[in-house]
Amino acid sequence: MAKQKKQPRPKAITPKGFRDYFGTEVTERAEMLQKIAGVYHRYGFDALESSAVETVEALGKFLPDVDRPNEGVFAWQEDDAKEGQDWLALRYDLTAPLARVFAQYRNDLPTPYRRYAMGPVWRNEKPGPGRFRQFYQCDADTVGTSSMAADAEICAMLADCLEEVGIPRGDYVIRVNNRKVLEGVLEAVDLANVSNPNGPPDYYDDMGEWQANILRTIDKFDKVGEQGVRDLLGEGRKDASGAFIDGIGLSDAQSEPVVAFLTSKGVNNAETLQNLSSAVGSSEIGYEGIRELEEIIALLNAQNYQADRIIIDPSVVRGLGYYTGPVYEAELTFEITDDKGRPRQFGSVAGGGRYDDLVRRFTGQEVPATGVSIGVDRLLSALHAKGRMDQTAKGPVVVTVMDRSRMADYQAMVAELRTAGIRAEVYLGNPKNFGNQLKYADKRNSPAAVIQGSDEHDKGIIQIKDLILGAKIAENATYEEWKERPSQFEVPRDQLVAKIREILDGQD
Amino acid sequence: MAKQKKQPRPKAITPKGFRDYFGTEVTERAEMLQKIAGVYHRYGFDALESSAVETVEALGKFLPDVDRPNEGVFAWQEDDAKEGQDWLALRYDLTAPLARVFAQYRNDLPTPYRRYAMGPVWRNEKPGPGRFRQFYQCDADTVGTSSMAADAEICAMLADCLEEVGIPRGDYVIRVNNRKVLEGVLEAVDLANVSNPNGPPDYYDDMGEWQANILRTIDKFDKVGEQGVRDLLGEGRKDASGAFIDGIGLSDAQSEPVVAFLTSKGVNNAETLQNLSSAVGSSEIGYEGIRELEEIIALLNAQNYQADRIIIDPSVVRGLGYYTGPVYEAELTFEITDDKGRPRQFGSVAGGGRYDDLVRRFTGQEVPATGVSIGVDRLLSALHAKGRMDQTAKGPVVVTVMDRSRMADYQAMVAELRTAGIRAEVYLGNPKNFGNQLKYADKRNSPAAVIQGSDEHDKGIIQIKDLILGAKIAENATYEEWKERPSQFEVPRDQLVAKIREILDGQD
Repeated sequence: MAKQKKQPRPKAITPKGFRDYFGTEVTERAEMLQKIAGVYHRYGFDALESSAVETVEALGKFLPDVDRPNEGVFAWQEDDAKEGQDWLALRYDLTAPLARVFAQYRNDLPTPYRRYAMGPVWRNEKPGPGRFRQFYQCDADTVGTSSMAADAEICAMLADCLEEVGIPRGDYVIRVNNRKVLEGVLEAVDLANVSNPNGPPDYYDDMGEWQANILRTIDKFDKVGEQGVRDLLGEGRKDASGAFIDGIGLSDAQSEPVVAFLTSKGVNNAETLQNLSSAVGSSEIGYEGIRELEEIIALLNAQNYQADRIIIDPSVVRGLGYYTGPVYEAELTFEITDDKGRPRQFGSVAGGGRYDDLVRRFTGQEVPATGVSIGVDRLLSALHAKGRMDQTAKGPVVVTVMDRSRMADYQAMVAELRTAGIRAEVYLGNPKNFGNQLKYADKRNSPAAVIQGSDEHDKGIIQIKDLILGAKIAENATYEEWKERPSQFEVPRDQLVAKIREILDGQD
Repeated sequence: MAKQKKQPRPKAITPKGFRDYFGTEVTERAEMLQKIAGVYHRYGFDALESSAVETVEALGKFLPDVDRPNEGVFAWQEDDAKEGQDWLALRYDLTAPLARVFAQYRNDLPTPYRRYAMGPVWRNEKPGPGRFRQFYQCDADTVGTSSMAADAEICAMLADCLEEVGIPRGDYVIRVNNRKVLEGVLEAVDLANVSNPNGPPDYYDDMGEWQANILRTIDKFDKVGEQGVRDLLGEGRKDASGAFIDGIGLSDAQSEPVVAFLTSKGVNNAETLQNLSSAVGSSEIGYEGIRELEEIIALLNAQNYQADRIIIDPSVVRGLGYYTGPVYEAELTFEITDDKGRPRQFGSVAGGGRYDDLVRRFTGQEVPATGVSIGVDRLLSALHAKGRMDQTAKGPVVVTVMDRSRMADYQAMVAELRTAGIRAEVYLGNPKNFGNQLKYADKRNSPAAVIQGSDEHDKGIIQIKDLILGAKIAENATYEEWKERPSQFEVPRDQLVAKIREILDGQD
């Protein structure tokens, strides 16, 4: 055998932009996903777990005239693969795989197909603070129906999910908007008569191009506000850095319906719909969008979801350029304190909408679909921010080792505890230094330690140390309290399980 | 904007060697993992979810003098990355990431560190029938202790896991062996005096090389049996294809202790240990191995795990070359019928052992560790083979749409059912053809359909169809039975939930 070259030691690092999750970070997310899956299931949605790897062709991330997949995906070339299947990539979301799966299995799947999917996705992007290149998505979509009942159902389900994971009613609102209403507004804008000070006239020879520009501007409403949108629709504005951003050249009158749309939210849904009606004027598609919103609200009311949970809000613009009909967004309305100590609203934790070209890329057929994606990591951090998560991980009861030759006795103790359903373990490190054993128990967030030296063994007893109480007492108890509430108990060996249970119950 | 070239339609296919999982395939596995996680947790193990992506350097899959990662991993090159971190790859197991994580966080983690991990791993291998390039692993390892109590604990935990997921006691056995005993046997073989008919004498100038050859031969015991091992240790044998495989040139006398080791299983652990003692002769390491096995069995007995669950079995050879101390394997002992209709034992569903060089690659320090990996997919298929899984997915109750304008009424019905915790949905396809609605309900494995036309609506009633009973009756009921047990009921609207619940309870 050839001798291997001496290699330098590898670095033990998580790749840049990736992270590891420990203990409760893993189990809290798993519990949340399980609760959400329970709601999805109750609504008739079926689980789908597609492979993490897709052909780049199926993902559609191959740009023409480029010999590598474009940015945003982690991709590699397969050896000995067929033309078109030679590049593989990690999925960047759960919707592209759904499109592929539905196209592939459409003859076997029920239609409409309600499916949910949960799992990691990968983005080959520059990582930033709190932005990772692997993160969880948690989606539910209904494929193959244009019925507004599908959209209404997903809004109701979203509300149920939030309550199921611990966001009480009143602390969230689901806002619904509709791309078609906006399109009606654009029809109401007399685009043919636009003067454009910034570009050559033939740049805007295409109405679609115009609409796309207005959509892009509207997508900035969250960031730049009403006046900002007015400026960007008109002659332009200075951004924060002082650079001048060209506007798209609408007159004030022409911008008006767009701004009216964005700000048309009334005191109730009826007033909002009234405002929207004036904004779209006689546009047919605009009218259709309003009718859709009315239908969604009527269906939700029939299921007892009222305006305290789900409302029409035309200021919801996220994704308006991407979706084709209703869009929805779940926002948490309680205040949290941000990094700089300022109060702010927590904001969006889920969003979705209707998109009607899901599988056309594969089959040429238009298949209507609507769906939602819940940002589980944001939702978890919201629950933490509200103090609705038990921050301390429940560690195991630690049975210490006083006498190495009696390991079997200690094992018998943990076996009893485990059989009783109590999390427990024997200290398995070097038992020589007893202090190290208690330090270990501390690091493990152990609720209690069990101690049995030769003396105790001969007397048939054990010592149990309540570590939570002990820590509390050490921190702030008076001498009297300390004397009255001992944190260490001597009990007969056969009362191990009973006494530990008593201590655990007292700590809850 | 440049016009895009017209692209051919992408193919909707799962990449070769990958697969998608639907409905109960997903939820059954999730439930099994959750049960196993519950046991792991009770034993004091903490969850770890490392990133799916590792640097190739950390995985150790970069061969010297090769400018690409070697086969077996999916890898790609990062742009703008530091030397040594420029190749990333998908993890191929959960142990290599554990090594990296422990080396990286060793100052913060408790020692010993008990961790469990569950998730997909990826292998860039030629796929075959039932062999996929993405599959689940489910591991538990204890890092940082050489105590046999750690190994014993993992054997006990493995038994608990199997029972927790539905394998009853008596249907499995956990077999324990020890690499050190084998090494003792090798010491007992007088290797210095071997005549080697097949290779140049200096090929075997290294004792380690010798031992490695014998280990490789022993690893074939499962496949070739006792005589096969004898032949391969000696002059060689013809394999199934008729090709002659060279042996490694031991005399019969020299092979004897190795074969004695492999076949030393007695009627009980005491007899097995006795046989092993004669096989290792005066070898110190062999004696140490036997002492370790004795200790494991004693610790397990103290926890009430007896020979009906965990036994010493020197014929367990899988991984004996890889592990450094005790090895263990969980085998299901019941018979199943294979593809060709022949009865056979189900075989191994989990395995593991002690390996003491986990993090040395990173830190230079030797850190002892021991762990197990449960093959969840094999375990699931075992439960299916034994008929211990409910094969039929419980579909949702389907509320049919008889009158499109009354969608709100139908939605109110499903809302009531869902609020009562019953899985339910409204049919969201085109309602024109009622037959299609019932076909859909059938495809969804619906337990019941709810029907309300205008007539029923006016009378304040609904029709409920018991689809499971209906299917049974359609299959094999007599006319009398059919008359006596109607599968369709007319009930007042306000008894929807009560009647559906009654039907569901009757179906369980």
